[in-house]
Amino acid sequence: MIMIEFFSIKTNRREEIVDITKRVEEIVLKSKIKEGLCVVFVPHTTAALTINENADPSVKRDILDKLAKLLPMNDNYAHSEGNSDAHIKSSLIGNSVSLLVKDSVLVLGTWQGILFCEFDGPRERKVIVLVLSNE
Amino acid sequence: MIMIEFFSIKTNRREEIVDITKRVEEIVLKSKIKEGLCVVFVPHTTAALTINENADPSVKRDILDKLAKLLPMNDNYAHSEGNSDAHIKSSLIGNSVSLLVKDSVLVLGTWQGILFCEFDGPRERKVIVLVLSNE
Amino acid sequence: MIMIEFFSIKTNRREEIVDITKRVEEIVLKSKIKEGLCVVFVPHTTAALTINENADPSVKRDILDKLAKLLPMNDNYAHSEGNSDAHIKSSLIGNSVSLLVKDSVLVLGTWQGILFCEFDGPRERKVIVLVLSNE
Repeated sequence: MIMIEFFSIKTNRREEIVDITKRVEEIVLKSKIKEGLCVVFVPHTTAALTINENADPSVKRDILDKLAKLLPMNDNYAHSEGNSDAHIKSSLIGNSVSLLVKDSVLVLGTWQGILFCEFDGPRERKVIVLVLSNE
Repeated sequence: MIMIEFFSIKTNRREEIVDITKRVEEIVLKSKIKEGLCVVFVPHTTAALTINENADPSVKRDILDKLAKLLPMNDNYAHSEGNSDAHIKSSLIGNSVSLLVKDSVLVLGTWQGILFCEFDGPRERKVIVLVLSNE
Repeated sequence: MIMIEFFSIKTNRREEIVDITKRVEEIVLKSKIKEGLCVVFVPHTTAALTINENADPSVKRDILDKLAKLLPMNDNYAHSEGNSDAHIKSSLIGNSVSLLVKDSVLVLGTWQGILFCEFDGPRERKVIVLVLSNE
């Protein structure tokens, strides 16, 4: 069984990390698969996806702050749109995550959440989810 | 249906980003699947794959320039082959990308292309593509 | 065919890279698939997985050293548990790797190994492996 669905999210700041775990879990539940693979993909070049701590919000802040320190917004970039830092961060973090489904739910560690990383907002963004199983 | 194919590319400089979207799309078309997953993998430890903007070439230049600034080629590395920076960049960017196939084509955002990142060229490199579907 | 298995590893230092290629290969062999996909996932937020050189151990040391230079353990982080550097490294390297299986074995380049990256050890860690095929 293969199912591809998408949802939209609205970001509110230039840089922001949004927990989308529940949105992805809903799609996995809807698919009714028991065991399989779930790939989440963003069709954007200035955003990213990662899996990290969703409990203490200061982890999200540290990720954004330290990335901004390593890759400042203004730093003599060749690309003239003012968002080159966002493109580079997108490639460093990556634009997809792969997850396993077991006993009908996403396999996630105690502290893990699926995090959408906005690096050039605020924008309306799209998240695409594939659920794949042999059932 | 599972199909695994590969193709070669020749890089021309030590550091270079090459758009390989068309090569991967040809393999997806050849597979004739309608919906599924496509995983692209490089069997190299000083190269990487990412998905980023393929329109303005200055984005590719900024990615290479800023990575070189964060990880200079010469920086008292323990590894004595002169390419430790390339190994680290490979792990930061990652050696595979996962893509979705829908309506027989790769799902890619308007500005997205599949980019091969050479960090220790010029070399002859190999790219391996898996296409997977339940059809 | 879908198989999900896991194994544990014990790390011995705060930061350490452990080659887990053989452990993953054993699971692929056990699955008896000929062609397919293998996704390896860590359910932790201060560890990561990467594919890189497993021959010269100095590559592993360089990866850890340069990451520590870019993201020092103490650097005015908002997160108060003293391991914010480990969370950020986990998102930069990524918590899963995707591999191809062909002729019943993992497709890996000559120098490639699957490396577990510990950034906040020593700890007991878990690695989850999915093997997926249409056989």
